[in-house]
Amino acid sequence: MQPTQLTATAPRVLARDLGSVTPGERVALAGWIHRRRVLAHVTFLVLRDRSGLAQVVVKDPAVVEQLAGLPEETVVSVTGTATANASAPGGAELVEPEVTALTEPAVAPPTELWRPTFGAGLPTHLDHAAVTLRHPRHRAAWQIASASMRGFRSALGALEFTEIATPKLVGTATESGSTVFTVDYFGRTAYLAQSPQLYKQMLVGVFERVFEVGPVFRAEPHDTVRHLAQYTSLDAELGFVRDHRDVLAVLREAIAGMVDAIGAEASEAVALLGVDLPRVPDEFPVIHFRDALAMVGADPDEPDLSPAHERQLSEWARAAHGSDFLAVEGYPMAKRPFYTHPQGPPPPECAPDDPRREVGRYSNSFDLLFRGLELTTGGQRLHRPSDYAAALERTGTDPAVLGGYLDAFAHGMPPHGGFAIGLERWVARLTGAENVREVALFPRDLNRLAP
Amino acid sequence: MQPTQLTATAPRVLARDLGSVTPGERVALAGWIHRRRVLAHVTFLVLRDRSGLAQVVVKDPAVVEQLAGLPEETVVSVTGTATANASAPGGAELVEPEVTALTEPAVAPPTELWRPTFGAGLPTHLDHAAVTLRHPRHRAAWQIASASMRGFRSALGALEFTEIATPKLVGTATESGSTVFTVDYFGRTAYLAQSPQLYKQMLVGVFERVFEVGPVFRAEPHDTVRHLAQYTSLDAELGFVRDHRDVLAVLREAIAGMVDAIGAEASEAVALLGVDLPRVPDEFPVIHFRDALAMVGADPDEPDLSPAHERQLSEWARAAHGSDFLAVEGYPMAKRPFYTHPQGPPPPECAPDDPRREVGRYSNSFDLLFRGLELTTGGQRLHRPSDYAAALERTGTDPAVLGGYLDAFAHGMPPHGGFAIGLERWVARLTGAENVREVALFPRDLNRLAP
Repeated sequence: MQPTQLTATAPRVLARDLGSVTPGERVALAGWIHRRRVLAHVTFLVLRDRSGLAQVVVKDPAVVEQLAGLPEETVVSVTGTATANASAPGGAELVEPEVTALTEPAVAPPTELWRPTFGAGLPTHLDHAAVTLRHPRHRAAWQIASASMRGFRSALGALEFTEIATPKLVGTATESGSTVFTVDYFGRTAYLAQSPQLYKQMLVGVFERVFEVGPVFRAEPHDTVRHLAQYTSLDAELGFVRDHRDVLAVLREAIAGMVDAIGAEASEAVALLGVDLPRVPDEFPVIHFRDALAMVGADPDEPDLSPAHERQLSEWARAAHGSDFLAVEGYPMAKRPFYTHPQGPPPPECAPDDPRREVGRYSNSFDLLFRGLELTTGGQRLHRPSDYAAALERTGTDPAVLGGYLDAFAHGMPPHGGFAIGLERWVARLTGAENVREVALFPRDLNRLAP
Repeated sequence: MQPTQLTATAPRVLARDLGSVTPGERVALAGWIHRRRVLAHVTFLVLRDRSGLAQVVVKDPAVVEQLAGLPEETVVSVTGTATANASAPGGAELVEPEVTALTEPAVAPPTELWRPTFGAGLPTHLDHAAVTLRHPRHRAAWQIASASMRGFRSALGALEFTEIATPKLVGTATESGSTVFTVDYFGRTAYLAQSPQLYKQMLVGVFERVFEVGPVFRAEPHDTVRHLAQYTSLDAELGFVRDHRDVLAVLREAIAGMVDAIGAEASEAVALLGVDLPRVPDEFPVIHFRDALAMVGADPDEPDLSPAHERQLSEWARAAHGSDFLAVEGYPMAKRPFYTHPQGPPPPECAPDDPRREVGRYSNSFDLLFRGLELTTGGQRLHRPSDYAAALERTGTDPAVLGGYLDAFAHGMPPHGGFAIGLERWVARLTGAENVREVALFPRDLNRLAP
């Protein structure tokens, strides 16, 4: 496809390509007026398009006067003569410009978007996201998110995973009744899916290896910096695993793919935000949950790790393994969902006090910690119908509400497992954002349903 | 990552790779028992994995007896000796097998999945989708869907579109109040997004070119073969267009990318289902809505095309242009949403009876017909704030309900447009499925919320 030509007089070039234009050639830029700098004898117009910024030098008094009526964020096309200038962005600028407004003069944003640091607080940003997302730092955060999705898919595609699209409207709230949204479904009650868990498992029966990148919904009643009512979940599930360690190996590939894609496709965003991209080790270091409790000095009967424990363990992984990632395996069955596979029988060589000896207490599940924060939960799932029957009885779950899900197991399912990565949490951790809302497009929470 | 090894005695190979194994080598297959054929002196076991089918020859009476207790769909690993056999799938088979069941014996599916034609009706399929999706014809239809998504993203990625993820929970029902699902949102009423339309437009202001592949929701009160309550929408939107023809050019690239990806990555599915992949012309043929009405002999005041008209027009495009695709442009403004851009002033060279002369009546929008059916709706949108003010007044829409959306235009938006392709409808048309439910994973409709 030819580049879009918006003016009759010259072809459009992108800001980043201005340096490649033969000096003296007439070309058109098109974009948003990022900034006007009016000096005594010259006005600099900085134009922003999807590729970056370009500088336009305005000396003609008529054009200077025209620009006085075209505030920042007005969309214009600018036809001018490309000129080399080592001090301009990209080593080139446009001179002798004719400016055409492509819309009406813009209303001023709630904070000046041309300033390198975003000058307003989070509530202002979220209230005015339609315009404040244009700030280069906000754009950059999402470019990292976008590259992450691409990298996730590409890594799993290379491992022969099939992309799926599962129902977001479901008939039963399976994972936790208290945090689910209810929908009026043609007069019946439906729920918004909290995860594609049950569907991705069923589809392992069809495709062996599946992934989905899509929205999940949590009616999270607490206003925290880590939770959203809707977020993007990067889900994968695969069959024919020996145990959760095979799942962890695929998670490693997925994260390596995400990091590679960010480095390759969002390098300017990485530089702008000062992101320190993690090195992904060939294998994630793994610690057993019981050993993790011991290491942080917690009661061995604690059923979970606290945020402080997670930070402490991450510091240890950094010091002992040089790794930003640490997998904690063997979380107690009591704290995991009904489909969780228990830890297998202990291998013969393990020591008498090895936690793998305590059959039924621990699970074949893991959390992946990344720089002090839980990033991913995953593990092996039950696959035998009789194990499901026992688990449902143990957890007091009515098999009737699971309907077709249990069918999959009755009709033959392989040993399998999977994981889910929260996209916004990943990007927040990478960019150092304190609040996950800073890196979501139009986040949803307890108080926010617009814009 | 190394291939998963499920047995201690031999590495796992996929069915399609059995022909590449050195004859005489011991290897393991793992998968579902697709079929057992018990003859007098030999039993053939056909095993299915994600890559296809493989044949196992069983002569040992003990293994024959073991197989009698392992019905079709039971998941097993089979270690055996690879042997060349020109009449086996892939030119090789496994002999002298040891069979290990990886789960309990499977319950029989509602219809035999090994038969080349799916032997049950649509309701049976949908009720038992967790197992009937395993039928090779159902798998194949989704593999075409999956390749289509990949091709869509890859074509738009190459054109520098940024992937976005927009809210599915929205505060106002903007497009049509009658077909929207309501959600209890922390005690308030929210709606499920019918499309990412308003968000993708706002994000053109941020990234210029955006796309999203995600679920959209329609509380469709009619039980038709074309509509689902949730479907996967392939959405794109781009700025700095001259008019809808630039949008159509990008749609052409997206569809070409989808067709290429299907050909490259789902060729077995294409062959199995006998799909005749369309040739995508360099430019879609275009006919104006008024000329289309005249061609099918309809009243010139008709506001829309009927399904019969669409079929008739598609036949004409095939005969006159050799094209499976036909764009109809210039639909009447009266039938299009408030954000639709009207047709521009007529170019000076056009004839006195050219429909482009009727300013304000027609729009810069289009439908793309594919083999007789509307596949895509797209067009140019309004971008000037004053045009929105006028459109909202004309259509009686309260600006307050649109909140942040209108902000985007006040703060500067370029001329832009976009389109949306319904994934399931595309796959149904390609595969010749009469009902869109045949090609969706776990479809949702008026009557169906499970599995």
